[in-house]
Amino acid sequence: MNQDQLFEQIRKKRSFLCVGLDTDIKKIPEHLLNGTDPVFAFNREIVDATASFAVAFKPNLAFYESLGWEGWQSLEKTVNYVKTAYPGIFLIADAKRGDIGNTSQLYARAFFEKLGFDAVTTAPYMGEDSVKPFMTYPGKWIILLALTSNKGAGDFQFIRDENDGELLFEKVLKISREWGSPENMMYVVGATQAEKLTEVRQIVPDHFLLVPGVGAQGGSLREVARYGMNQRCGLLVNSSRGIIYASSGRDFASHAGSAARQIRDEMDQLLEEQGIVR
Amino acid sequence: MNQDQLFEQIRKKRSFLCVGLDTDIKKIPEHLLNGTDPVFAFNREIVDATASFAVAFKPNLAFYESLGWEGWQSLEKTVNYVKTAYPGIFLIADAKRGDIGNTSQLYARAFFEKLGFDAVTTAPYMGEDSVKPFMTYPGKWIILLALTSNKGAGDFQFIRDENDGELLFEKVLKISREWGSPENMMYVVGATQAEKLTEVRQIVPDHFLLVPGVGAQGGSLREVARYGMNQRCGLLVNSSRGIIYASSGRDFASHAGSAARQIRDEMDQLLEEQGIVR
Repeated sequence: MNQDQLFEQIRKKRSFLCVGLDTDIKKIPEHLLNGTDPVFAFNREIVDATASFAVAFKPNLAFYESLGWEGWQSLEKTVNYVKTAYPGIFLIADAKRGDIGNTSQLYARAFFEKLGFDAVTTAPYMGEDSVKPFMTYPGKWIILLALTSNKGAGDFQFIRDENDGELLFEKVLKISREWGSPENMMYVVGATQAEKLTEVRQIVPDHFLLVPGVGAQGGSLREVARYGMNQRCGLLVNSSRGIIYASSGRDFASHAGSAARQIRDEMDQLLEEQGIVR
Repeated sequence: MNQDQLFEQIRKKRSFLCVGLDTDIKKIPEHLLNGTDPVFAFNREIVDATASFAVAFKPNLAFYESLGWEGWQSLEKTVNYVKTAYPGIFLIADAKRGDIGNTSQLYARAFFEKLGFDAVTTAPYMGEDSVKPFMTYPGKWIILLALTSNKGAGDFQFIRDENDGELLFEKVLKISREWGSPENMMYVVGATQAEKLTEVRQIVPDHFLLVPGVGAQGGSLREVARYGMNQRCGLLVNSSRGIIYASSGRDFASHAGSAARQIRDEMDQLLEEQGIVR
């Protein structure tokens, strides 16, 4: 999927919502646990209930890996289901991968060729050759960690370079934007750092940003849009727990749908205020 | 496994070799490809041929994930085989994981509880709460990226903090050593940066270091030992391609064994020179 197509989806759905499929077997409603694949059953219902309000789904790999190969099987079924039933949806593997070149190449093979994701999140610590192998697939994306939403973001991401006074996350943005283009790179910028989005936008005005941390982690959607939106929206805002665990009963899917619709409605208004939709 | 037990294995085997199981289906000898699980069949033979010369095995997750859930199944079978057949071996999941706390917790569940690894490699960019969840398992280890063996290491790892003049990788060592102890943390330091091991040892004298990059990547074992060894050895030196692809024919396992034995002999001598074995 290219940027035009993603922007088209955003306008059509009046939404820039990404639904995070952080599906924890320990939090799945009881009545699903007797089936053959509770994780996939849960995901399918969540996807069906929220797909009209979202432009992206983002399975978080950790949750699937915690179940071993059977978790990977649930993941593959989920991806195949979304691609078949909702072909316009942008699919992100939230995997935070990154290794030496020959290894990153294999991760790219895993997520782009084998599973068919559109994008994968990657970590910047190992530099250019750890990220580049993901960029050789036309229409596929890497989403590089820049400024994360957690407390530990403060440990290293704000170190200031004595040569040029730049902070580490700014350096990650500046150096890495040369590796690709706004057509194959996005950045993770946490919603809990909304005021920092102004600085981020000065460095990468045209890139899409994947913004986690709205909802359970405390970030505000309006603040994110205020500081982070560009003329082509340029945002995918993720919500996981607030949607998929909106209810823990048999009615979990309809509650998830309502929660997603509510966010979509707020996004619709923000897109209108920016003149992106009418 | 605790540090005493690992050191005991090193003395017993006169080796600090870690064999990297970077098993690429595209490089497996042809005669194995008709079996039901060529990756596992390959690994089992490699493990049998090299286990007497190695103290650790390190499957590289990317290679298994490139085959989807079936790759994860091969991985699980490999881990179970090693644990059953060679119970004293230290098992490292080379996964380079790291995410917000609730997600890292699930990665820990995956690698320590579900698969039964002894250690997992993690990336530092997201800071303390992305790493801490791995440290709540007694006898389990995290191995944090500090200074990597690839060219891209130069992109960010040598940024100098204007406050205290420290380089990013030094900062990662200094800050993170407070999160755990030499009993549950190790660091990745690339063999291609052998002369930097002196600085690393000043910061973390007692931690074990996992050193990739000897062999195919060009690092020298003697240099690594010279700058990196401490009184309890303190090194696990990894070789992947140089061992497992020593031959691409039916005799691949015996060639792998010879390659591992040759490294072990060199390690034996280095351990003797340091007075660690007699």
